[in-house]
Amino acid sequence: MNSVQIPWEDRPEGSKAVMWRFSQNPVIPRDLLPDSNSIFNSAVVPFEDGFAGVFRCDNTSRQMKIHAGFSKDGVNWDINHEPITFVEGNTPLLHSEYAYDPRVVWIEDRYWVQWCNGYHGPTIGIAYTFDFKTFHQCENAFLPYNRNGVLFPEKINGKYLMLSRPSDTGHTPFGDIFLSQSPDMKYWGEHRHVMSPAPFEDSAWQCMKIGAGPAPIKTEEGWLLIYHGVLRSCNGYVYAMGAALLDLEEPWKVLYRSQPYLLSPQTPYECMGDVPNVVFPCAALYEEESGKLAVYYGAADTVTGLAFAYVPELLDWLKANSL
Amino acid sequence: MNSVQIPWEDRPEGSKAVMWRFSQNPVIPRDLLPDSNSIFNSAVVPFEDGFAGVFRCDNTSRQMKIHAGFSKDGVNWDINHEPITFVEGNTPLLHSEYAYDPRVVWIEDRYWVQWCNGYHGPTIGIAYTFDFKTFHQCENAFLPYNRNGVLFPEKINGKYLMLSRPSDTGHTPFGDIFLSQSPDMKYWGEHRHVMSPAPFEDSAWQCMKIGAGPAPIKTEEGWLLIYHGVLRSCNGYVYAMGAALLDLEEPWKVLYRSQPYLLSPQTPYECMGDVPNVVFPCAALYEEESGKLAVYYGAADTVTGLAFAYVPELLDWLKANSL
Amino acid sequence: MNSVQIPWEDRPEGSKAVMWRFSQNPVIPRDLLPDSNSIFNSAVVPFEDGFAGVFRCDNTSRQMKIHAGFSKDGVNWDINHEPITFVEGNTPLLHSEYAYDPRVVWIEDRYWVQWCNGYHGPTIGIAYTFDFKTFHQCENAFLPYNRNGVLFPEKINGKYLMLSRPSDTGHTPFGDIFLSQSPDMKYWGEHRHVMSPAPFEDSAWQCMKIGAGPAPIKTEEGWLLIYHGVLRSCNGYVYAMGAALLDLEEPWKVLYRSQPYLLSPQTPYECMGDVPNVVFPCAALYEEESGKLAVYYGAADTVTGLAFAYVPELLDWLKANSL
Amino acid sequence: MNSVQIPWEDRPEGSKAVMWRFSQNPVIPRDLLPDSNSIFNSAVVPFEDGFAGVFRCDNTSRQMKIHAGFSKDGVNWDINHEPITFVEGNTPLLHSEYAYDPRVVWIEDRYWVQWCNGYHGPTIGIAYTFDFKTFHQCENAFLPYNRNGVLFPEKINGKYLMLSRPSDTGHTPFGDIFLSQSPDMKYWGEHRHVMSPAPFEDSAWQCMKIGAGPAPIKTEEGWLLIYHGVLRSCNGYVYAMGAALLDLEEPWKVLYRSQPYLLSPQTPYECMGDVPNVVFPCAALYEEESGKLAVYYGAADTVTGLAFAYVPELLDWLKANSL
Amino acid sequence: MNSVQIPWEDRPEGSKAVMWRFSQNPVIPRDLLPDSNSIFNSAVVPFEDGFAGVFRCDNTSRQMKIHAGFSKDGVNWDINHEPITFVEGNTPLLHSEYAYDPRVVWIEDRYWVQWCNGYHGPTIGIAYTFDFKTFHQCENAFLPYNRNGVLFPEKINGKYLMLSRPSDTGHTPFGDIFLSQSPDMKYWGEHRHVMSPAPFEDSAWQCMKIGAGPAPIKTEEGWLLIYHGVLRSCNGYVYAMGAALLDLEEPWKVLYRSQPYLLSPQTPYECMGDVPNVVFPCAALYEEESGKLAVYYGAADTVTGLAFAYVPELLDWLKANSL
Amino acid sequence: MNSVQIPWEDRPEGSKAVMWRFSQNPVIPRDLLPDSNSIFNSAVVPFEDGFAGVFRCDNTSRQMKIHAGFSKDGVNWDINHEPITFVEGNTPLLHSEYAYDPRVVWIEDRYWVQWCNGYHGPTIGIAYTFDFKTFHQCENAFLPYNRNGVLFPEKINGKYLMLSRPSDTGHTPFGDIFLSQSPDMKYWGEHRHVMSPAPFEDSAWQCMKIGAGPAPIKTEEGWLLIYHGVLRSCNGYVYAMGAALLDLEEPWKVLYRSQPYLLSPQTPYECMGDVPNVVFPCAALYEEESGKLAVYYGAADTVTGLAFAYVPELLDWLKANSL
Repeated sequence: MNSVQIPWEDRPEGSKAVMWRFSQNPVIPRDLLPDSNSIFNSAVVPFEDGFAGVFRCDNTSRQMKIHAGFSKDGVNWDINHEPITFVEGNTPLLHSEYAYDPRVVWIEDRYWVQWCNGYHGPTIGIAYTFDFKTFHQCENAFLPYNRNGVLFPEKINGKYLMLSRPSDTGHTPFGDIFLSQSPDMKYWGEHRHVMSPAPFEDSAWQCMKIGAGPAPIKTEEGWLLIYHGVLRSCNGYVYAMGAALLDLEEPWKVLYRSQPYLLSPQTPYECMGDVPNVVFPCAALYEEESGKLAVYYGAADTVTGLAFAYVPELLDWLKANSL
Repeated sequence: MNSVQIPWEDRPEGSKAVMWRFSQNPVIPRDLLPDSNSIFNSAVVPFEDGFAGVFRCDNTSRQMKIHAGFSKDGVNWDINHEPITFVEGNTPLLHSEYAYDPRVVWIEDRYWVQWCNGYHGPTIGIAYTFDFKTFHQCENAFLPYNRNGVLFPEKINGKYLMLSRPSDTGHTPFGDIFLSQSPDMKYWGEHRHVMSPAPFEDSAWQCMKIGAGPAPIKTEEGWLLIYHGVLRSCNGYVYAMGAALLDLEEPWKVLYRSQPYLLSPQTPYECMGDVPNVVFPCAALYEEESGKLAVYYGAADTVTGLAFAYVPELLDWLKANSL
Repeated sequence: MNSVQIPWEDRPEGSKAVMWRFSQNPVIPRDLLPDSNSIFNSAVVPFEDGFAGVFRCDNTSRQMKIHAGFSKDGVNWDINHEPITFVEGNTPLLHSEYAYDPRVVWIEDRYWVQWCNGYHGPTIGIAYTFDFKTFHQCENAFLPYNRNGVLFPEKINGKYLMLSRPSDTGHTPFGDIFLSQSPDMKYWGEHRHVMSPAPFEDSAWQCMKIGAGPAPIKTEEGWLLIYHGVLRSCNGYVYAMGAALLDLEEPWKVLYRSQPYLLSPQTPYECMGDVPNVVFPCAALYEEESGKLAVYYGAADTVTGLAFAYVPELLDWLKANSL
Repeated sequence: MNSVQIPWEDRPEGSKAVMWRFSQNPVIPRDLLPDSNSIFNSAVVPFEDGFAGVFRCDNTSRQMKIHAGFSKDGVNWDINHEPITFVEGNTPLLHSEYAYDPRVVWIEDRYWVQWCNGYHGPTIGIAYTFDFKTFHQCENAFLPYNRNGVLFPEKINGKYLMLSRPSDTGHTPFGDIFLSQSPDMKYWGEHRHVMSPAPFEDSAWQCMKIGAGPAPIKTEEGWLLIYHGVLRSCNGYVYAMGAALLDLEEPWKVLYRSQPYLLSPQTPYECMGDVPNVVFPCAALYEEESGKLAVYYGAADTVTGLAFAYVPELLDWLKANSL
Repeated sequence: MNSVQIPWEDRPEGSKAVMWRFSQNPVIPRDLLPDSNSIFNSAVVPFEDGFAGVFRCDNTSRQMKIHAGFSKDGVNWDINHEPITFVEGNTPLLHSEYAYDPRVVWIEDRYWVQWCNGYHGPTIGIAYTFDFKTFHQCENAFLPYNRNGVLFPEKINGKYLMLSRPSDTGHTPFGDIFLSQSPDMKYWGEHRHVMSPAPFEDSAWQCMKIGAGPAPIKTEEGWLLIYHGVLRSCNGYVYAMGAALLDLEEPWKVLYRSQPYLLSPQTPYECMGDVPNVVFPCAALYEEESGKLAVYYGAADTVTGLAFAYVPELLDWLKANSL
Repeated sequence: MNSVQIPWEDRPEGSKAVMWRFSQNPVIPRDLLPDSNSIFNSAVVPFEDGFAGVFRCDNTSRQMKIHAGFSKDGVNWDINHEPITFVEGNTPLLHSEYAYDPRVVWIEDRYWVQWCNGYHGPTIGIAYTFDFKTFHQCENAFLPYNRNGVLFPEKINGKYLMLSRPSDTGHTPFGDIFLSQSPDMKYWGEHRHVMSPAPFEDSAWQCMKIGAGPAPIKTEEGWLLIYHGVLRSCNGYVYAMGAALLDLEEPWKVLYRSQPYLLSPQTPYECMGDVPNVVFPCAALYEEESGKLAVYYGAADTVTGLAFAYVPELLDWLKANSL
């Protein structure tokens, strides 16, 4: 979209990992804002001569809000102290009880924000912005209860496509990824099942629930989807990150899906915090020429981390390690 | 729609009840079909010179299927031994894992069937028919997990309207009624919250979850909605039936809502069966001139009952006993 | 207290049961009042030339209320259509969110009513009346969460004594009987443990929770306590009735406690209703000279039944069948 | 084994059912013994010139005990008032905390009793008797937690075979049938998986857990197994009865398995009682020449019923209705 | 009370926090005693020329005991190796199954200890001491199940006042703060509701349960209450600390209540330990002239930490950030 | 068995602990293998001139596998990259869905491996090897659901003995240790109860479930059993380690059992990882002459640690601190 350089750090010497962590993690500390309890599960896109993003900032009342922010390098962020307020989009303004886990994607002429929106339960909120200053709130995509709504970066067959994970009212102990379609970002239908959790014996890190992460990345071989999977141990949920490749034309068809995880919670900032043992990807920056991929992920529901990979390597790994 | 006389029996002498049971209940026994385990939660509409319907018939494998049926008088039914099979409606045929709790409504030029459809979890299936012989299956209205999808009998502002109750994957212990809108019976949006369960202290029979019953009935004062409410005792769920009046133009606005129930499980056929203590309305026949209303309801998830009321009386009662 | 004859019916021929049901059960039907859903768990005492009582009458909104009622014979009841309203007792009036499961007992100069009172959760409400017309509400005995508060019919060592069953906010799956003491019906202390549920292998009908029933009956050998016990089957709770004998001077000491139940839900009106399989004693009339005992009990949380016994026989049985 | 006529009643006129109920059900009432609360889940075999059996008799303390009993006709029973006491079998006597759900089978030279035995949790108790007077208790077959242990009526490859359903400590919400083998009725091994619950969409009555019923019946085509299956509704477990055919030589191989149930709880004595909605087969009498089969089953965990079938018909039905 | 200097450390440079941690935390390590597993949730008061306290010391059998201890500076503690044993207070000695989470307060002429006392379940134990050598155990304040009993430091209207949080038998998932009154520290009544958990959308850190911490601190504007609130994440409970201001005369009336937390678990010693993510205040030392406040809190149910604030600042913050 | 020196490090100066950690812990890091997620719960025995072992290595698909490994010093390990594959032992090969938590013990002429084996649920797999290259898989010892099967290092009365902990299908919230006997490693019987969880008031670290750890160690006074116990806090399970002494001849008789734990999770590598707060012993090396004992234990279900003790001291401590 622009030629700004994405955040990057080479693979540590000696490592053979397909994905590796940034040595300066966490890149966004929990208390970057005066009254933030935590900043995580945040979305970043190229913007002007740098980057912009929408950030989940829980405050010290533990209210969940989303804030806009800006950065020259994708690592050092200037996040607005005040949460986003919305103006009317394609419908009169709806009340939002809370907002969390945003994603942002550029489609055609504008940035679309999707997030988990409180409307008598969690559902998928949608808004668009041109400048990360004014945000136009649209109709919620679905009925409650839903989470992890993720738009594709382009229309397919004239329709917007959104992945989501239908949920319940609490700490949902199940979850498949579905795909829905819309001619107009207002009415949604043609819901298709995409993926279920994997069998425990095959890939336990994703055996309880799964959910889409960053907007799918278009490659020649298909849509590259970074997603999270959850395992329930006797001491709670463990969130890790894997990848799948979806068909370019019929993206509800899964071509490959990683049996191993790409990244699981292993560092202190991933294992200790408000929700221990969470690695939760929400955004990715991709430099097509070099194949460099920088994934932003929430760590322990407390801070934000960065991890890197080369997409061609990742695709090879995915094909060689598919369920 | 036609001048066939709806089933009717006058209020028992001495009774002051707003709604009363048919003395010949259950009108449909559990074993009407050679291999039916139970026939309940069924939908009936006027059709030709009598009535037609779509019936939930669980077979002795306890598989949930919907069957078409016909009757001259609405009481004695001839139900097809084979379940409904579908042809393509507004989309290539989708696989349906199971089908239950149907509703039927006439809109403009055809009958629309809605039911709880198994597509990677329960969601709302939609089909249309002109003759109760050929049924055209359309796109599922929503993502899973949803139940009790109920269409309004006419378009409002050019859009189809559907009530539904977002659910989870099991015996959902929560449930609000929402309203969704569609320009084309394919894509749905503009989801609006209609009603939540009532506070326990005010109206405990509807304090855990609620769901729409028959298609709303148009009256001068609003849409009359018969709905079910659920209370959880230490020995399970108790399903009873109440009424609400929705705004004619903006039917997500509740004008009145009954604090008392209209009918709760009290007879042996309602209290004993596959699921004890269930009264679950799914269809209503209304004779506008006389005000007579005949409500079909599932009893104990086993058989089908009929109850009667006069709509003008019911409206008066509703207004006098509103939450 | 007076010489009115208590309700009575001789033991059925051929029966050797220690306690037997009234053949006219249920004595109070669920719909005795115009808008009652159920009348059960009710308390009866001798009053003037007949009997008075306080009755749990859930209305058709399933609100829990207590009503006063009167009877000449203890079988045919005239229950007030309006629930009891209170005036100030030993403290300014406290708000009551709901009222259920009353007990009534005469102590010294007045009737004391105890019930499960909604004050930010269930606790034990207290009121007194001289005439069953005016009821003076006092301080709640305890903090929430408590149920089945039952006063002794006389002071011991100058103090009022109350049995109760500390609970939680829902369908409590545990429950012991404790005894508390008060110099003034306002401040309570000296809490003593009385009985726990019985081991499953010894007496399963009372293995999950237990609670006092009618006010203890003074006999030469001790306080005779009729109480309920609960077993949890895979299909819910089963409430049955047993007996214990408490020390006259230190009534937190259990002298005998019945291993078998006296009565368990076995008739259709006990096994079918709003909560199947419930036998729940709340009141007893005792004719000391004849030894006749008439126990009022709620059946299936829907109607009220009567059962009879001879106290001397009951004591013999209790001593011969003690845990 | 002997030529005594098994209990029988022809199929009701007009019925096409493969299995039908005895019109005199329940054949054993709950209070046949002076202090029995319920008599159900009981085992019957031909014995001398009539029948003998081992009966689950819960007493009014709700203690679970097994009693011996005798009958000339299999319908009218004389059950010992005292529970079975054991003498040493193949090991010093082990303490038994409780005993329930017995099965009895003749193998070679004696009757073997199997039951759910309380030894630090439920497991499978084993005893033998020659005369139903003296019972020799042997080693428990398995470690806890196990239920529904059912021996084959003959050795196969020199080994005793037992079906069982590994369980947990409570109202187990899962359950497969396994087969274990023993050279000596003391040490068990070579455990093989036989059947799991069926998928919900295919045969919901057996979708939560399953367990063997009477001792398998040898037919030319295989071992005929009558078993129970359980469905969990929002109001509890529902137990129904089906059939399977196991390989004669390798009986852990399932040849056929009924998709529909044979009998589900539908009568008042099956739907109402200590545990509503239970049909639980434990014994069968088979008259090979006539093909007549009489199945004893517990109803509502309260009483004992009888149902009849013709084995050849049953086999045809089984093959035509197999999962 | 005396002029000993309370522990203190100035706010870290650059910090704007209203409350800040002691840099030498944890001040009491888990293994201070030879066989202690953990020392936390402990109570400290000025005593003679230093400080005394009652400490929750779980031993390596994980038994919960309370020990007396002494310190000159409030930071370095000498804790008795043996737990407190009691002599008779206002009643014959009651058996205590366990003792944890003590509070200590000076009222009039002596120190009162309150703790969670095991008496057939958790309830509030009371004792007094003059010298921290001899402890006189009194009647338990309430029936089980209760926790977090906290006395006010002076009588109001001639009565002792105690805050508490009624509970259940386990890891209680609910909890309001109530206030109870006593003329004599023996009988308790006049129970008043004080605060409920906050709505999730407003203040999620305190949305599941709340409980009083140190004895309320008298200020001109009201009683300053430091309390804990609990949030349930998918990985367990998170305990944080906030503040409220209660009316001086009618302290069940809440004047202000902090929407944000004062301190939440963020350091390794708060996030890692026997119960991760716990900050649990139990005692506070207040120097009125300087406004300095030192709060002792349990960290991760393992060690004891100290945090500081200025009361005037805290009150300003509380008023500016009230729910 | 051989004279190789076991791993050892003296007790830290000043420490009085009976068991102490190795300062180089964790001795096996989670990523020792190229694709290992974690290596823990592993079994080590003397082998040739060093040590061999069987190791639980979960891979990055979170599949549970067991691998063979070798070491000269017991600290630095060379673990095979490929999991163990089996050949036929005493029965045709059974399918294994997964394998975890191995133990290894030498009996008579060979090494026996026991592990938690997936066969339609977790049960106890058995195999033998002479060289840690070829492993012969035998019949599973028991029916599912079982875990923590641990063989004694010699036959007693001609029979193999195995401890185990019957379980359920999930994160079992209960668990006793039983002992079973076999003449031939194929058929098992004579099951005896050994130990239950301890009462909460006495020894809470082992109050929810317990399970055997390394193979029992023969001493003159009895079999020394190192075992784990589990406590459930509001934030999950906590696994600690204790000891018991079993009778030499009748090892189901417990002579002593430690009330305190020997080691509980306290270090970062025990408190942080895939399952926080786990110390789980699976193997022990014992040098009889010196009394030195080296215990291998899984830490946080992620890495492997070592802890040391002197057996004579441990026995003294055990006798002095017995429940």
